[in-house]
Amino acid sequence: MKKTKEKVNAAIIIIGNEILSGRTQDVNVVSISLWLNELGVQLEEVRVIPDIENSIIRTINEVRKKFKYVFTTGGIGPTHDDITSQSIAKAFNMKYGYHKEAYAILEKYYGKEKFSPGRKKMAMMPTKASLILNPSSGAPGFILDNVYCLPGVPSILKSMLGGLKNKIKGGKKILSKTISVNTVESEIAKSLEYVQRKFKTVDIGSYPFFRLGKIGVSIVIRSSDKKKIDDCYKEIVSFLKNKKIDIIGKR
Amino acid sequence: MKKTKEKVNAAIIIIGNEILSGRTQDVNVVSISLWLNELGVQLEEVRVIPDIENSIIRTINEVRKKFKYVFTTGGIGPTHDDITSQSIAKAFNMKYGYHKEAYAILEKYYGKEKFSPGRKKMAMMPTKASLILNPSSGAPGFILDNVYCLPGVPSILKSMLGGLKNKIKGGKKILSKTISVNTVESEIAKSLEYVQRKFKTVDIGSYPFFRLGKIGVSIVIRSSDKKKIDDCYKEIVSFLKNKKIDIIGKR
Repeated sequence: MKKTKEKVNAAIIIIGNEILSGRTQDVNVVSISLWLNELGVQLEEVRVIPDIENSIIRTINEVRKKFKYVFTTGGIGPTHDDITSQSIAKAFNMKYGYHKEAYAILEKYYGKEKFSPGRKKMAMMPTKASLILNPSSGAPGFILDNVYCLPGVPSILKSMLGGLKNKIKGGKKILSKTISVNTVESEIAKSLEYVQRKFKTVDIGSYPFFRLGKIGVSIVIRSSDKKKIDDCYKEIVSFLKNKKIDIIGKR
Repeated sequence: MKKTKEKVNAAIIIIGNEILSGRTQDVNVVSISLWLNELGVQLEEVRVIPDIENSIIRTINEVRKKFKYVFTTGGIGPTHDDITSQSIAKAFNMKYGYHKEAYAILEKYYGKEKFSPGRKKMAMMPTKASLILNPSSGAPGFILDNVYCLPGVPSILKSMLGGLKNKIKGGKKILSKTISVNTVESEIAKSLEYVQRKFKTVDIGSYPFFRLGKIGVSIVIRSSDKKKIDDCYKEIVSFLKNKKIDIIGKR
């Protein structure tokens, strides 16, 4: 990955003991990353950290200085182990308490009768945060400066990304092409390296796969410059033909 | 998570643009974490970083000082984008070149005739590293100090963990119990918080789920102290009964 002027970057901080313990398989990185690709934002780092206040504060304050956008997932629910909101308020030295707008949204969502103390906790966050609306289950996420706090439940997180689109200013959209071939990596390593040297600003990745008993390699070309991808693609296809290597898929 | 004297911790560094781009769903964190649980090692942080030499060097040198064990995944194959071995050699200020033992293993695996330059690259690593044997596909991983370098392909990685067992000195095994209930988090938040305050050295996590159209919560109790888990478990089951909340699963 080469730095270019147009590049806008991002990091994700996954807050959750359940990911670290191996109990839960994270799927949010893929969702957020694919959505960021569309917006022209390049995900450059992910961290998974435990539900410990100091870890959250330290990580947030380190990462938010390094990246244009930071997304956190997890820890904004109603239980004692949901400490993201209060920790982020501390990281920003901001007041933590009932957020008026969030309170009103949740009171309306549950109805006054059923708006229990547990549910009220979900209206507690840095009081000056802007909200990220939640079309699935009421409880909003929030934005402080360049930090976007989202829930951990994958379906809810996904439903909230749509409403965020206009708040993210991406660069050029990152495009990619994939060529899948019926060979092993060592057979194409040298030629691929040659092409990578020629196209310095294009990312060429090589990924072996084992599917249905077949061994193969996917060659992935990524760049925000369509012409460069196309040229690079042609060059790769050409050396594959010379080597008589079967192309089994393109997209 | 409270610090205890017996606790042995670890971090994982996933090296790979394909994870950051959303192209590939990581599954290695779950594999390594569950294996570490068995050994009494607690995974405390994960980082996903790109295939950029400086990122790898900086991250390795930061993380290896903070954690007892560090596992890296990815970037030790034969192609130009596999730069983990050389970057780690640089991080440790060690010579990078053909590793005698690795070279011999790979030459035997492929046979002299088929031991191409691409394949030979997989024998290049910090020359003084100890090897992690690979029962699936020949190419070994390696160990430098507290850093364990594994491949990114999930099935190969898994096959290599077995041989590592004796090299990891864990603490007490981390045990867990899970109670799944037919309710929403806000209904149990207060009681759970009360139990967590009573059992300060036990981790109690609360995770909502949406399965087959049913909403529920999994309560996960984790500790290396079996008695404390059992006592905590009883206390949670007791308040659930008082609240007339259905327990739909235990394990």
